[in-house]
Amino acid sequence: MNGTLTSIAGITTGHVQDLTARTGVSVIRFARPAVASVSVLGGAPALRDTHLLEPEMMVERIHAIVLSGGSVYGLDATTGVQSVLREEFAALPPVPGKIRVPVVVQASLFDLANGGEKDPLHSPYAHMGAQAARAATAQPVPAGTAGAGTGATTATLRGGLGSASMVTPQGYRVSALMAVNAVGSATVGHGPHFWSAPFEQEGEFGGLGLPADSAAAAQHLLIKPDYVAGTTIGIVATDATLSPVQAKRLAILGQDGVARAVLPAHLPQDGDTVFGVSTEEKPAPDLTAFCAILQAATLVTARAVALGVYHAAPLGWQNCVPSWQEKFAGLLPPHAQENRS
Amino acid sequence: MNGTLTSIAGITTGHVQDLTARTGVSVIRFARPAVASVSVLGGAPALRDTHLLEPEMMVERIHAIVLSGGSVYGLDATTGVQSVLREEFAALPPVPGKIRVPVVVQASLFDLANGGEKDPLHSPYAHMGAQAARAATAQPVPAGTAGAGTGATTATLRGGLGSASMVTPQGYRVSALMAVNAVGSATVGHGPHFWSAPFEQEGEFGGLGLPADSAAAAQHLLIKPDYVAGTTIGIVATDATLSPVQAKRLAILGQDGVARAVLPAHLPQDGDTVFGVSTEEKPAPDLTAFCAILQAATLVTARAVALGVYHAAPLGWQNCVPSWQEKFAGLLPPHAQENRS
Repeated sequence: MNGTLTSIAGITTGHVQDLTARTGVSVIRFARPAVASVSVLGGAPALRDTHLLEPEMMVERIHAIVLSGGSVYGLDATTGVQSVLREEFAALPPVPGKIRVPVVVQASLFDLANGGEKDPLHSPYAHMGAQAARAATAQPVPAGTAGAGTGATTATLRGGLGSASMVTPQGYRVSALMAVNAVGSATVGHGPHFWSAPFEQEGEFGGLGLPADSAAAAQHLLIKPDYVAGTTIGIVATDATLSPVQAKRLAILGQDGVARAVLPAHLPQDGDTVFGVSTEEKPAPDLTAFCAILQAATLVTARAVALGVYHAAPLGWQNCVPSWQEKFAGLLPPHAQENRS
Repeated sequence: MNGTLTSIAGITTGHVQDLTARTGVSVIRFARPAVASVSVLGGAPALRDTHLLEPEMMVERIHAIVLSGGSVYGLDATTGVQSVLREEFAALPPVPGKIRVPVVVQASLFDLANGGEKDPLHSPYAHMGAQAARAATAQPVPAGTAGAGTGATTATLRGGLGSASMVTPQGYRVSALMAVNAVGSATVGHGPHFWSAPFEQEGEFGGLGLPADSAAAAQHLLIKPDYVAGTTIGIVATDATLSPVQAKRLAILGQDGVARAVLPAHLPQDGDTVFGVSTEEKPAPDLTAFCAILQAATLVTARAVALGVYHAAPLGWQNCVPSWQEKFAGLLPPHAQENRS
C-alpha cells in the first residue's frame, strides 16, 4: 500500500540525488494543473515564483512544485523542470492564439554546510531538476536520503525526505511530503524520541513515544551551531476540490504540523515553507469535512517530518551530524529493526 | 512566586467579568510604551487597530493590549481603555506641540453562543474595558474563568484565561497570557489529557501526560458544532529588547505554541491571534539568545492554553460545555485536588 504523497491520484514525484555533493532535487508533478497556495513562516526562505500562489493573484493552478537543496543556487532547478515541460508542451497540438506556459514554483533548503563536495562555481540544479522531472512516477515517495532531503540535517541528526498520508472520515485523502532540514530538532533533546510521537501510526518511526522528561528537555535550546541556516519545506495535498483560499489554509495547517514536529520551528534563520495543493479529484468539502482535511494536514505533515529524519540513510558521513539509524537503531526491538527501510 | 505574564517588570493586567452574560475583558498595560507586533493565523479574526503592528508600519510601541469576549461588539472595549488613558494623559504636564495619543490594539473572541444572558442591543464592552484598565495591577494574572476568558469554550470543554512564564538560559523572561476559545480542543479526544502535556511543568495542569491512544484520537475531528466561531487569542512577551521585526517573529513562535496546544488550530472559523511584545527592560539578545526566547515563546504559549482550560471554574453552567474541573477533577490524585485553584 502506498502511504505517501503519490497515493493521491494524479500526483507523481521524481527524485535525483548526488551523494558526493550531498544534495538533491525532488519534483512533484500533477496530471492536470493543480490548485495551490503557500504558507511561509520561516524567516529565511529561498523560494521561486511563490508570490503568485497568494490567493489574490490570478494564476490559480500550477504544473509542478520543486523542492531542492542548494539554497539560492538550488532555485535553478525550476529552469530544468520548465525545460522538460516545454518539450512536452511543444509535442502537443498547437491551439491558435494559446501559449502554454509551465507554472512551476519552488522552495530550496540550505545544505551548503553539510560536508559534501560542492562545486564552488557551478550550479548542478537545472540539470538535476530536468532529470527529476523526467523521472517522475506514481511509485511511493522514497524516504530519508533521497531527492531534496539528501543533504538535509537538523540540529543533532541528519534530515531527509518524509511522506505520510491518511484518509479523513469523509473519504478525502490528505498527504504530505516534507524535506526536513530544520535549524531546530525533530527529536527530543539528545534522545531518540520524536516530537511527532503523539501522532505516530503503527510504530512508523520507532514506536518509542515521548520520554518522561520531555518538558525538561524542551527548556534547552538545540539549534544548528554558527548560525547555519535551515529549512523545513514541503507540500501537503488533498484530492478534495479546494479554492486557492482554502489551499492557503491547508498550507497553514501544514505549518502547524511543522510546529508539532520541530522544536523550535520557524526561526529567523529557518525558511520553513509549506505548499497546499488540491488535485480537484473529489467534490468540494463542506466546512466540517474541510476541517477534517485541515486537521489531517497537521497530522500527516508532523508524521512526514519525523519519517524524514527516521529514514535518513546510515552512510557514515564525515563532517556531518549522524543519522538517527546510526545513533539509535540499536534501541529498536528486533522486529522493528527487520522492518525498517 | 508569580509565574504569569505580570512576572515581567512593567506589565500590569486588569480583568473584568460578567458571569451572567458569560463574557469579560482583560487589559494588558505597559509602564512605558512597548514594542509590539502580531501574528494572525486564524481565518475569522476580530481585531482592532492591529495592522499598525506590522513591522513596516511607523508606530513601533503601544500603550496597551485588550483581549475581550463579545466578538465584533467586544471591539468597543478599546474605546473604554482609551478613555482611561486620555484621562491619565490629560493629567500630565503638557508639552507644546505634542499630542499624546493612546495606542491600543485588541483581539476579541466569539463567546456569543455560550448560553450567557447577552444584551441583544447594547455593547457593555467600552465600560468593561475602562474598568479593566483602571483595575490593572502587577498581581499574578487570574486563571480560568476571568477577564477575556470568562465566556470562552473549546470543542468539548469550557475555556479560560491561562498564563505561564519561564526564564531562558541567558536570563530573559518570556511569558504568555492566552484566552482560550478554540474551535478545536486543547485536550485529547474526550479524555482529560492536554495536548501540551510534553511541556507541562510540575503537574500544573494535572500531570496526566498524554494517553497511549493519542494517535488514534487525533484522527477524529472534534470541533464546535454548527459552525460556531472560536478563537485563541493572547500575548507572548519578553523583557529582552526586540525590534518590531523580532516581535513579529516572537508572535509567530507563540502561534507554534497554539499549534502544539490545540488540535486542530487555525481553522477558517478560528480567529487565532498572538501579539508579540518586548518591554525593552534588558539588552538586545544575540541570535542564539533570541532563538532561546523564541523557543520559550512556543513553550509558555502552549502551557498557557492548557492552563486556561484546566482552571475554568466549575460553575455548572447550563447550555454550555462542562469545565475540565467538573468533568475530570475526580481523576486527580488527592494532593493535586487540594492544590488546584
